[in-house]
Amino acid sequence: MSKFIYPKTVEKWCVFEVTVKGPSDGNPFIDYKMRGTFHSKNETKTVEGFYDGDGIYKVRFMPSFEGKYRFAVEVNFSDKVYEGEFTVTPASKNNHGPVRVANTYHFAYEDGTPYYPIGTTCYAWVHQKMELQEKTLETLKDSVFNKVRFCIFPKHYLYNLNEPLTYPYEGTPCDSSFLNEENFSFSQEFKGNSWDFKRFNPKHFQLIEKRIQDLMDLGIEADLILWHPYDRWGFSKMSKEEDDLYLNYVIARFAAYRNVWWSLANEYDLLKTKTLQDWERFASIICEKDPYNHLRSIHNCMALYDFSRPWVTHCSIQRIDVYKTTEYVDEWRTRFKKPVIFDELGYEGDIDQGWGNLTGQEVVRRFWEAVCRGGYATHGETFVNPENILWWSHGGKLRGESAERLKFLYKILCETPGHGLRPHRLSWDEVVAVPDTPLNMGEYYLIYYGFNRPSFRRFYFDDNTKYKVEIIDTWNMTITDAGIYKVIR
Amino acid sequence: MSKFIYPKTVEKWCVFEVTVKGPSDGNPFIDYKMRGTFHSKNETKTVEGFYDGDGIYKVRFMPSFEGKYRFAVEVNFSDKVYEGEFTVTPASKNNHGPVRVANTYHFAYEDGTPYYPIGTTCYAWVHQKMELQEKTLETLKDSVFNKVRFCIFPKHYLYNLNEPLTYPYEGTPCDSSFLNEENFSFSQEFKGNSWDFKRFNPKHFQLIEKRIQDLMDLGIEADLILWHPYDRWGFSKMSKEEDDLYLNYVIARFAAYRNVWWSLANEYDLLKTKTLQDWERFASIICEKDPYNHLRSIHNCMALYDFSRPWVTHCSIQRIDVYKTTEYVDEWRTRFKKPVIFDELGYEGDIDQGWGNLTGQEVVRRFWEAVCRGGYATHGETFVNPENILWWSHGGKLRGESAERLKFLYKILCETPGHGLRPHRLSWDEVVAVPDTPLNMGEYYLIYYGFNRPSFRRFYFDDNTKYKVEIIDTWNMTITDAGIYKVIR
Repeated sequence: MSKFIYPKTVEKWCVFEVTVKGPSDGNPFIDYKMRGTFHSKNETKTVEGFYDGDGIYKVRFMPSFEGKYRFAVEVNFSDKVYEGEFTVTPASKNNHGPVRVANTYHFAYEDGTPYYPIGTTCYAWVHQKMELQEKTLETLKDSVFNKVRFCIFPKHYLYNLNEPLTYPYEGTPCDSSFLNEENFSFSQEFKGNSWDFKRFNPKHFQLIEKRIQDLMDLGIEADLILWHPYDRWGFSKMSKEEDDLYLNYVIARFAAYRNVWWSLANEYDLLKTKTLQDWERFASIICEKDPYNHLRSIHNCMALYDFSRPWVTHCSIQRIDVYKTTEYVDEWRTRFKKPVIFDELGYEGDIDQGWGNLTGQEVVRRFWEAVCRGGYATHGETFVNPENILWWSHGGKLRGESAERLKFLYKILCETPGHGLRPHRLSWDEVVAVPDTPLNMGEYYLIYYGFNRPSFRRFYFDDNTKYKVEIIDTWNMTITDAGIYKVIR
Repeated sequence: MSKFIYPKTVEKWCVFEVTVKGPSDGNPFIDYKMRGTFHSKNETKTVEGFYDGDGIYKVRFMPSFEGKYRFAVEVNFSDKVYEGEFTVTPASKNNHGPVRVANTYHFAYEDGTPYYPIGTTCYAWVHQKMELQEKTLETLKDSVFNKVRFCIFPKHYLYNLNEPLTYPYEGTPCDSSFLNEENFSFSQEFKGNSWDFKRFNPKHFQLIEKRIQDLMDLGIEADLILWHPYDRWGFSKMSKEEDDLYLNYVIARFAAYRNVWWSLANEYDLLKTKTLQDWERFASIICEKDPYNHLRSIHNCMALYDFSRPWVTHCSIQRIDVYKTTEYVDEWRTRFKKPVIFDELGYEGDIDQGWGNLTGQEVVRRFWEAVCRGGYATHGETFVNPENILWWSHGGKLRGESAERLKFLYKILCETPGHGLRPHRLSWDEVVAVPDTPLNMGEYYLIYYGFNRPSFRRFYFDDNTKYKVEIIDTWNMTITDAGIYKVIR
């Protein structure tokens, strides 16, 4: 291959990549550095490159403007400066740019198009065999889901005892042949891992970025989980220096993908090897090194993180009570003044675990509660099946009843006037959402009755206005015109 | 009639009544007093009598022992002492005596038979027309319910705008002809009531005590609500003296009925005319004047009463959260160290109000949550119907699906070893009940999965014991033998 490769054009908000051939002696992940500066009339950004194995170095950049750009790439293994020009072409029809916080509690793509997250969870889908990964993408293509939460490190957990397709580091894993669902325990200790935490396995990361790109092509955000506690390989117990090396590598590789979100951890409070100082240091590194300001959060098990920290762009929450889940969304909106995404409200399924055996109706109810209280929620599925392929971790195909109903919910969100909903108090026994802007007050009410079933209901708004009433059946997915009403008292 | 009447025999724990003819001039409710002392080998009790209209005075006594008794009745309108003897015969088969607190958190009849309350609510059934009252009794006869909550004063509320069959006082009510469901508001003011709060209407109380007796004959406890805020007649706004007069009259008339429970109020905290001092004064009067120590409590709307007060025998609770209801039972057990009865967990029905449109499934779920956390619960029904007869207030017939399932729950409670259940922690995602005595530990577990649906479940108790597993379907009311298991790890 040539020693210096780059394309002449790139689409706005897509990945522009400069490839340089260099040395492969020593430890190139540590010993050699690469830095690119990208410049146009409207922006100048300097980003770090990374070693991709086989003597190949890359630096990636996501342009935010159309038109002419120049770049200069420096490496510490040569005095040469690699320079060039390229043209950024307009965004194609389904490319709206990265997702940003808009209107305090909601989201929009960078081009201003509202983004209403209806996420799903496939924690370890990129660690499964390729055929299954392809099937997951097919399923996602036909679904409403526009965000997927998944892990960079492989996952060791109930239903997740197999070895991953690739490992993030050079080395060999501990023996796992004795593991089964009966002898699995979350706090097991494993011996026999042998990894070089200073030498990444580029294949592992190449696969993940291929999947990030696949999701991007489907219009789906990649909510990347950087650390998690479901580990038998030691990836959750590396030193500070190794953690930081990993984080820098991940940012250098993935940040140029517009659909990346940074989720510092899943169940951060179960990672006993990390302190609050560690999470705050990781956040600082991301704030410093990610030039695109991708969305950032961290996900809890028992204890909410302090989402009021300035680096947190939105709350990524797991339920903290068995019975009340998304019913807390309005409280958290008020408390944190940021968008609330209920990223774990329990999963539709029938496995033995209490977090994984909800009915489809309960999942749909929790979604509506979240949305009508001005937040968002994330789906997952955990059905027992002969292949032992559970959507929540492995991907594959959907088996539940909720996913279809979430399409219907998404349609209603898109049809709602304004941009996003906020909770509005009418009465204690209903959840009322109104458009999240004072200008639309009184024009539109979305009233949700949860597990209740009133056969009729009296309303009073004012003495004069006529209201058009539509009855939404959130399960049967019907909207029935109930006529025009004015004051009836 | 004769001037002095009493029977020669009475059954143990039944009502022995002495009738004396006296003056009807002045205000006999105030001017004349009557007192009876009842004496046997095992007990001596002095109780107050009451004026029953038409120059008739009565004093009532409930004997707690078999055998010979003597009595002496004094009146302040004559120097004569009315004396006599009677024999107390053994309790008949279905007469187990008054219900007492047993084993800190549970109940038993005085003869030691366990009493597991499965209550229902017919607030105003004794104020409806006679035909409907008879129908209510028929329904209760075929039901599992062994406690009914109802009010002594008539009820003014949504679906309760009609005039009662009788009034508790002499006088005339305000005009109610203009009232309908649309113009009803809870805080309406009414003018035009004209009552003499010092002259009771004995017919009102005669009817209620007939109904207490009817319930007793069916083996049902009468959970009498002494005050409530649903009032347009002014019965909730009487003076301290009038309140005390009323309470003394009620105790003198009703205390001898073994199935009476004293519920000081429904939604005490909505009675803005009463202070905590008032409730405590009422409690003191009951403690002083009720010689049989009937069960005593008070029922909240938003704020729990301090059930740790010594006079409170058990907690009579209304839910204080829309979503979490009976899930709090174990917390309250720990806090108050008394039996917890969740007397209002919402009603099965489909009316417009959020407290009255639960599904039967949700009501049954809340009952099981209460019971498996070591408490008890109370049923109610509020279905829209052409006759506008709602069980929760008027009685009549049952329309819902929960009542049948509560029979099944009751059967399981009766079959459970020991006397009552207590919560036991195995895992966060299940509600485990064990017999509420340390002696039975490890013998029996009742594990409830609420709205979850695990298709399988692993358990570990110890390495050796074999367990017989039965799967209880709380809705379809089946018990399936799942075989014998021993340790499987």
